[in-house]
Amino acid sequence: MTQPPRRYAAAGVDLEVAADALSGIETAVRSTYTPDVLRGLGAFGGLFRLRDLPDRPVLVASTDGVGTKTRVAAALGAWRGIGRDLVHHCINDVLVQGGRPLFFLDYVAASRLEPQVIADLVDGMASACREAGIPLLGGETAEMPGVYAPGEVDVVGTLVGVVGEAALLDGSRIGEGDLVLGLPSGGLQTNGFSLARHVLEGRYEELLSDGRSVGEHLLDEHRSFLPSVQPLLEANLVHGMAHVTGGGLPGNLPRVLPEGLGVVLDGTWPEPEIFGRIRAWGAVDEAEMREVFNLGVGFSLFIAASELERVTTLVPEPLPLLGRVERGAGVRWD
Amino acid sequence: MTQPPRRYAAAGVDLEVAADALSGIETAVRSTYTPDVLRGLGAFGGLFRLRDLPDRPVLVASTDGVGTKTRVAAALGAWRGIGRDLVHHCINDVLVQGGRPLFFLDYVAASRLEPQVIADLVDGMASACREAGIPLLGGETAEMPGVYAPGEVDVVGTLVGVVGEAALLDGSRIGEGDLVLGLPSGGLQTNGFSLARHVLEGRYEELLSDGRSVGEHLLDEHRSFLPSVQPLLEANLVHGMAHVTGGGLPGNLPRVLPEGLGVVLDGTWPEPEIFGRIRAWGAVDEAEMREVFNLGVGFSLFIAASELERVTTLVPEPLPLLGRVERGAGVRWD
Repeated sequence: MTQPPRRYAAAGVDLEVAADALSGIETAVRSTYTPDVLRGLGAFGGLFRLRDLPDRPVLVASTDGVGTKTRVAAALGAWRGIGRDLVHHCINDVLVQGGRPLFFLDYVAASRLEPQVIADLVDGMASACREAGIPLLGGETAEMPGVYAPGEVDVVGTLVGVVGEAALLDGSRIGEGDLVLGLPSGGLQTNGFSLARHVLEGRYEELLSDGRSVGEHLLDEHRSFLPSVQPLLEANLVHGMAHVTGGGLPGNLPRVLPEGLGVVLDGTWPEPEIFGRIRAWGAVDEAEMREVFNLGVGFSLFIAASELERVTTLVPEPLPLLGRVERGAGVRWD
Repeated sequence: MTQPPRRYAAAGVDLEVAADALSGIETAVRSTYTPDVLRGLGAFGGLFRLRDLPDRPVLVASTDGVGTKTRVAAALGAWRGIGRDLVHHCINDVLVQGGRPLFFLDYVAASRLEPQVIADLVDGMASACREAGIPLLGGETAEMPGVYAPGEVDVVGTLVGVVGEAALLDGSRIGEGDLVLGLPSGGLQTNGFSLARHVLEGRYEELLSDGRSVGEHLLDEHRSFLPSVQPLLEANLVHGMAHVTGGGLPGNLPRVLPEGLGVVLDGTWPEPEIFGRIRAWGAVDEAEMREVFNLGVGFSLFIAASELERVTTLVPEPLPLLGRVERGAGVRWD
């Protein structure tokens, strides 16, 4: 957050509210600092000491947003979860190639910066950073009247991680006969919100069978898959991974498959109720559902068939078997 | 650019235009790749091999945007320069602490993505990256109808650099009697656009004395100060630096001053004509001018008084003497 006080003053917001929110923001950001942070808040650039590097270190870097999930957050006034979603989305994108997260940076912009919105967003980002053991090293807030629509906010995150070249997962280890396992998403994560909002508009208050509203379901957290995947990486059991973002399983699994290999999906896995509602209420055909949504699989793992038992023992949650790798290309639903 | 083809298709834009623009984007991004890029385009995260690290390496990371300079670009349909501005802004923020740039990431979002706008932005970013010898390692494009106003675009850049702990510039070397030198900005860089647009609205076509329009002056490039400053860093002649961004000289010089020291500005330097027009047409008082604009100084250097001749010999451009470091705090205009 470069010089937030001046930015808030320029915005003409209530300075007492702003001062409270700012001190909260500063506390939240500092709560993420590790001994490797040499300078964060107030500096032109955040400073992070590189230590304990693996042999032949490779940095893995990813920038992302959370799409129009922000519009649901704006409608429901619930921003903390968006901050957590953003950090987790970036962690997962870096994790896919075996990257261990090092630090996170944020950018928050709006037509007019509401101190409480920024404070909630930063509080969410900071909590996710703490859980991952990484600092929120720096960031920027921008007030851009005329660029953003009133009340709307965009948030952008950048995460830098590291992996040793020998541990780098680029898909080349994936072979014919490998199994494809899924990690549950619990909800939409941060993709498919344009379609979901179109179908669900005006229904955010309706309750699903668990007693929670459609709006709450839409805001369900985009998980970090790091804690579940880390033991497998340490045991060197992973051949490849895919984060199921925009494009769903058919769009993301092929991103890591070597030439000449495809995936057949003949398994079953639990689908969160929200997807069924979107399918039914919007009369969305199955092909579109599969290309827009994760349908319950947030992240997937490619492993050797012979290692299935070891893998399921090491991961403390269900890992549904989605399918197998076969000769061919792309994803075939069976 | 994660999966731009799908994003464009979803946008419903003319696919032939999109295909042309996309192939241009891909070519531009690839033109920045160095041998250290293991994977960029299409990957979940960009991969950058860390080599030739200094002793006790420290990563320097900065995320930034270009503020509402985007609105001038939108009004004039000139996006390439915005891409260059963004990379240069980030390079300068990392340079301030002695950081050598390693790689850059971008995020581009709009209500509706116009392929030609993205192509121009990326072309500008790529050209600035090539000049700095760094790859455009990754990025994201997002279409967010309802969040962004029609025709408006936001761009966010993140740059990661490296510096050895011994060469880190955190201001602690700055001492009483040091000289403060300026590097010319040539224009507004990327700050003060809310005020500038307010004052200059409806006057973008008027010509200044060099025959160029107000609009062109507003879009004047935010320079990279890396080429000018690098020889000084190599010769270990710099005590501290400040990038003159939002807050002007009084807001940015103190960010690197040690406790107990201030700056007296008693020098003179050329002020680009655009600032005089804003001052006159908007009847903006001098205190506000100084706090909002760089007034011609884009970057500043703190050096030992005894090294002035060596410094000016090593830098191939004028380095006006702005003032000196004295006991006290903040910036005093004399």
